[in-house]
Amino acid sequence: MSRRRPPLPVSLPSLDRSSHEPLQRQLVAQLREAVLAGRLAPDTAVPSTRALAAALGVSRNTVLAAYDQLTAEGYLVATSGSATRVAELPQALLGPREPAPVAAAPRLSQRAAWLTSLPVRPHRAQGPLAPGALAVDAFPFHLWGRLIGQRWRRPGRALTSALPPAGLPALRAQVAAFLASTRAVRATPDQVLIVSGSQQALDLVARVLLDPGDVALVEDPGYHGLHDALAFAGARPLPIPVDAHGFDLAAAGAVPEDARLACVTPSHQFPLGMTLPLDRRLALLDWARRRDAWLLEDDYDADFRYAGRPLASLQSLDPDGRTLYTGTFSRATFASLRLGYLVVPDRLLDAFLAARRLADTHPSSVAQAALADFMAEGHYEAHLRRLRALYTERRGALHAALAAHLPDHPLAPSDAGVNQVVYLPPGVDDLALVRRAAKAGLAPAPLSTYYAAPAHVRPGLILGFAATPASELPAHVGRLAACLAAAGAPLA
Amino acid sequence: MSRRRPPLPVSLPSLDRSSHEPLQRQLVAQLREAVLAGRLAPDTAVPSTRALAAALGVSRNTVLAAYDQLTAEGYLVATSGSATRVAELPQALLGPREPAPVAAAPRLSQRAAWLTSLPVRPHRAQGPLAPGALAVDAFPFHLWGRLIGQRWRRPGRALTSALPPAGLPALRAQVAAFLASTRAVRATPDQVLIVSGSQQALDLVARVLLDPGDVALVEDPGYHGLHDALAFAGARPLPIPVDAHGFDLAAAGAVPEDARLACVTPSHQFPLGMTLPLDRRLALLDWARRRDAWLLEDDYDADFRYAGRPLASLQSLDPDGRTLYTGTFSRATFASLRLGYLVVPDRLLDAFLAARRLADTHPSSVAQAALADFMAEGHYEAHLRRLRALYTERRGALHAALAAHLPDHPLAPSDAGVNQVVYLPPGVDDLALVRRAAKAGLAPAPLSTYYAAPAHVRPGLILGFAATPASELPAHVGRLAACLAAAGAPLA
Repeated sequence: MSRRRPPLPVSLPSLDRSSHEPLQRQLVAQLREAVLAGRLAPDTAVPSTRALAAALGVSRNTVLAAYDQLTAEGYLVATSGSATRVAELPQALLGPREPAPVAAAPRLSQRAAWLTSLPVRPHRAQGPLAPGALAVDAFPFHLWGRLIGQRWRRPGRALTSALPPAGLPALRAQVAAFLASTRAVRATPDQVLIVSGSQQALDLVARVLLDPGDVALVEDPGYHGLHDALAFAGARPLPIPVDAHGFDLAAAGAVPEDARLACVTPSHQFPLGMTLPLDRRLALLDWARRRDAWLLEDDYDADFRYAGRPLASLQSLDPDGRTLYTGTFSRATFASLRLGYLVVPDRLLDAFLAARRLADTHPSSVAQAALADFMAEGHYEAHLRRLRALYTERRGALHAALAAHLPDHPLAPSDAGVNQVVYLPPGVDDLALVRRAAKAGLAPAPLSTYYAAPAHVRPGLILGFAATPASELPAHVGRLAACLAAAGAPLA
Repeated sequence: MSRRRPPLPVSLPSLDRSSHEPLQRQLVAQLREAVLAGRLAPDTAVPSTRALAAALGVSRNTVLAAYDQLTAEGYLVATSGSATRVAELPQALLGPREPAPVAAAPRLSQRAAWLTSLPVRPHRAQGPLAPGALAVDAFPFHLWGRLIGQRWRRPGRALTSALPPAGLPALRAQVAAFLASTRAVRATPDQVLIVSGSQQALDLVARVLLDPGDVALVEDPGYHGLHDALAFAGARPLPIPVDAHGFDLAAAGAVPEDARLACVTPSHQFPLGMTLPLDRRLALLDWARRRDAWLLEDDYDADFRYAGRPLASLQSLDPDGRTLYTGTFSRATFASLRLGYLVVPDRLLDAFLAARRLADTHPSSVAQAALADFMAEGHYEAHLRRLRALYTERRGALHAALAAHLPDHPLAPSDAGVNQVVYLPPGVDDLALVRRAAKAGLAPAPLSTYYAAPAHVRPGLILGFAATPASELPAHVGRLAACLAAAGAPLA
C-alpha cells in the first residue's frame, strides 16, 4: 500500500469561477466523483490542504472545509498526525456512475401502472362556461389577508404545535354549528374532521370503510375523483344509473351482496343537478340498514340553492349513524384553499382518526385558523349571501340566453349549484362539440365523459355560469349555439 | 282519501322561545319529524299558514317559509288552488326514528378494525425532554404573519385557482435549489412534489410503489408512522436490524425476493442518530439495482448537523433514479405547518401526480405561497442558522448534564438532529422508567417502543433537547437521574 503523498490528485479538479456555485461545493463534488469512479484509488493519500489550495489558486480554508465535508461523508479518512487518505471502499462498488440502460428501468407496481393509465380529464379546461369555475374575484381577499396576517403574527402555542388529527377544534366547532343550522346535520364538533378538500374525504372513506374487492355503489354519471379513489383503494365501484330524479337504486337490479357502501349527491346530483326525492332517501337508508352498508353523502355545492334555503341533508334523516357527510369550503372561497369537512358517525371516529394520522398526520394549521376566524366573525355566511345573489343573476342570464339561442335543447332540472346541463340528442358526439367550442374560446364539458357505463351515456354539455358576468353570458351562449349549428347537431 | 282541512295538525308543534334556534327552524324540524314518524299521515292536508300562525302565535311569514322549505325537501306537496298536503311516502318507510340497537351496529371493514387496533404511541407526551420538541418560540412569527398577510391581501389569479397536483411552482423551485445546495440532491423543480408533511410522502410512496403483499424493508428501530403507512397500503414491512453504523442489510440474511423497497434514514438514523457510512450507501444502491427495487431516503432532520454542514444525500449517489427523497419544513418552522417535499425520479412522476390527485387534489396554496416568499427572501436559511446555534448550545448543555449525572450510561453516537438516545442495560423496563419520569414532570420516550421485532429491542431513553433552554437542562437531567436511581436501574 503506497504511503507516498502525491503533490496533486490524479487529475486536478477544474473549478469554474464564473459559476454561481461556490468553489468549495465544486471541489467537494469533483472529489466525490473521483472517489466513486475509482479515479482516486482507495487508501491513496490526498495532497495537503496547503498544496491543493496553491495548485488551485483558492484559499486554504476552502480546501480545509471541503476535506472536512468529505471526511464527514466518508470519502476521506483523517488520521491525526498523518495524511488524509481516500477511504477504503469496496472496489466492486466503484466505477463510472453511469445511469442504467433504459431497458433496465425498474418494474412499476401494478398500482403505479394503473395510476399512469388514468386519463387526463377533459373538464380541466379553463375559459368561459367551464364547469365548476367560481367568482373568485368576489372573495374578500383584503379581509382574508388581514385576518390571516393578524392570526399568524401572534399565533400562540396551541396553534403552532401539532394539532389533533381531526383538525383545529375552533374550526370544527364552527363547522358543526354551520352544518346544523344550514343542513340539519346532527354532529358534535368531535365528529367533524377537517380534510384537505372533499377529495381527501373520499380517499379516506374508501380506505377505511372498504376492504380490497368490496363493492361501492356510485352514481352514473358521477364524479371521476370518487370512482378512481375507490378503485385506488382496491374497491370495486359499481355505477348505478341516475334517472330524472337522481340515484335509482330500484333500477339497479340485483345489487351484489358484498356492496358495503353507496355514494350519493342527494342535494344536487353531480353533474346533472337534480335533488333526490324524500322517498328515495328513505329507501336508501332502509337499504343500508337491511344490507348492513354505509352511505356517503357528498354535499359538494348545496350552499348555492336558488329557490330557497339549502336542503336538509340525508345525514339528518339517519337515526342509525350509517351516513357519512362531506363538503368543501373551496367552492365558496377559492379553489386552492383545499379545506373541507367529513362528518363521521361516532363508532367510526377512532378508525378515521388513525387513518388520517397515517395519511398526513393532521391538516395544516395555517389556513384553518384564518378560516375559523372568518366564520366566527360572520364573514363566511355574509359571503355566501353575496355569492347567492351574484349567481342568481348569472344563472338567470344563462337561462335567458339558452332560451333565446338553444330553445329546443332540454335542460337538466336543477335549482342549485354553479353548472347547468344542456342535453343533446342521442348519438351526438359531445366531445367533438367541446373541441369545436374550445376553438371558439369556450370551455363547456362533455357530459358523456362523466359516465362510467357505456349503456347509461346521454350526450350533453355542462355549462358553468358562476365565473362569468351576466352581461357576457349571452355572447358566449350565442357562440356556443353557432358551434352546434356548424356541427350540424340535430335538435333534441 | 280525506280532503278535509283540519284546523291544526294532529299535535301542535311546541316552540321554545328561549332557544337560540330560530322559530322557523324549530317548526320545520318538528313537522319533518311528525311526517317521518307517521304522525302526520300521507296525503293529509295541513292547516293554512294563517291558521297555524295564529295557533302558534308566530308571524305568517314564519309558517310560509317553513312550508316552502318542507315542500322543497319533499315532505309537503303544494298544489296551486288547493291545500298543501303531506307527501305520499311509502308507509313501510315511516315510523318512529329510533336508532338501531347497538347489536345491529354495522360491521367494520378489516381495514377499519386494524386501524382501530393501532396503539396510541407513548411518544406523544409533552414536557421537558420530549423527543422531537422544537424551539418554536425562536420562529419569526411576526415576519411570517407579515408575509402571509401581504401575500393574501392581493394573491393574484394563479394563486387562488386550482394548483398543479405537485404544488406551487415557486415553492418547488425554491426547494429544488435548497436541496441541491445543501444535500447535493439532483432534481429539477418538476421532480419536486410539495406534500402535507413527510407523512404524506410515506403514504404516497407505499401506495404507488408497492402492490398489496409486497415486502418493504424498514429500519428497526424506526418510525412507526412509516411501518403503519406501509401496512395500511397492504404492503408487508420487514424490520431490518440497525447496528452501530445504521441499517445493516448484510445482517438481514436472506431478503425475500419480493422486497420492492428499502426505507432508510441515512443522514441521521431515526431514532438512534448515526450516519450511514458511504460503503453501506453504495451497497444499498447496488442491492436496489440488482434486485430491481426502490429506495426511500427520509432526510427528516438533517438540517441540524452540529459537526459541519449537512451531509450529501443518498439520492445524490444514485445515477439510476431508484431513490426517492423526502423531508419536511415542519421541523425547522413549527409543527403544525405540515409542509414537506418528495423528490421523485422522472419515470415515476406521472404515477405520483395521479396518486396525489386522488389523495387530495393538490396541497393548499395558503401556506405554500408564504413559505415560498420566506425562502426567496433568505429568511429560511437565516432561521436555520439561528436554530443551529441555539441547538448547539442546548445539545452541549444536555451532554454536560448527562456526563455529570449519568456518566455510566452510553450515548448513541449522533452529530445531528434534536434528540439524544441514552442506552440502558438489557432487561431494564424503559416504559416503566418513562412512566416514573412522567410523574416527575419529564417526557422522555422509551426506546424499546420504537422496535418492531422483539429480538432487536435494546432499552433506552430518547431525550429531546431542542425546546428547553440550556440553563434548565441540568435540572431536568438531574431529576431524570433520580428517577433511574429510584427505579434501581443497574448501570450499563
